[in-house]
Amino acid sequence: MKRRLLSGFMGILAACGTLPDSVARGQDEPQAAITAVMTAQQAAWNRGDVASFMKGYWDSPELTFSGSSGLTRGYQPVFERYRKNYPDQKAMGHLDFSELEVRQLGTDAALVLGRWHLKRDADELGGTFTLVFRKFPDGWKIIHDHTSADAKRM
Amino acid sequence: MKRRLLSGFMGILAACGTLPDSVARGQDEPQAAITAVMTAQQAAWNRGDVASFMKGYWDSPELTFSGSSGLTRGYQPVFERYRKNYPDQKAMGHLDFSELEVRQLGTDAALVLGRWHLKRDADELGGTFTLVFRKFPDGWKIIHDHTSADAKRM
Repeated sequence: MKRRLLSGFMGILAACGTLPDSVARGQDEPQAAITAVMTAQQAAWNRGDVASFMKGYWDSPELTFSGSSGLTRGYQPVFERYRKNYPDQKAMGHLDFSELEVRQLGTDAALVLGRWHLKRDADELGGTFTLVFRKFPDGWKIIHDHTSADAKRM
Repeated sequence: MKRRLLSGFMGILAACGTLPDSVARGQDEPQAAITAVMTAQQAAWNRGDVASFMKGYWDSPELTFSGSSGLTRGYQPVFERYRKNYPDQKAMGHLDFSELEVRQLGTDAALVLGRWHLKRDADELGGTFTLVFRKFPDGWKIIHDHTSADAKRM
């Protein structure tokens, strides 16, 4: 029961984006650590800071991103893709992640599902994402991202 | 060297869809086992056999599928989705998987990336997929599938 309360408390801290890194990196709480990464990414995006948003990704030539233009491989190409598709804060709009679902795959990997929603002056769009996280000495990082948009409803 | 030759040989067998189940389930060759599952799925699809195609998936209410209509949860709903979207062999067309990439995540999980291509009388379409496989007593099964279509090029 105590453990459950603690876990709930850490979830709230993570949701507020105030979870200390030392806690976020803890062995026992991958869910809280991963939620903290996602919360930090969302906050970075919403202040127009793509460089900080990218800190959620594994800085490696093996990072992969699947999207509507196929597969992008490598941290720098993924970074460039974001910079090209979202050149300024107007294009970036306001991002919300929701329906986050973390499933552990062994001790140092996790599958994360969720929905994204982007609200801009000109339009609103959304869809689903599939992330695979791995645990590194400096924390949990996304090693693969598959993001797609919902089909437009008629 | 012997091991490498053996691995190559098993890869060829798997690609031909002739890999015995007992070998496909072996501890040492997740790559060959997973390739065999994908090859069997492709063959089942191309003979219009959705039920056999579904054998690649984990038969569980926790199976998840992300696509252009959002998240579908559970083996039966995923099955129904395929039956609804591809009611007959004409709608199913000819399926090809390519650019398969298997990355192990611990001993009993793997991330699989690749491309799909569907050729039908009326149209041709393709895109990328992200699969997460887990190893069960009866072999490797897809526990999550995120499939999306490439954006139409102008």
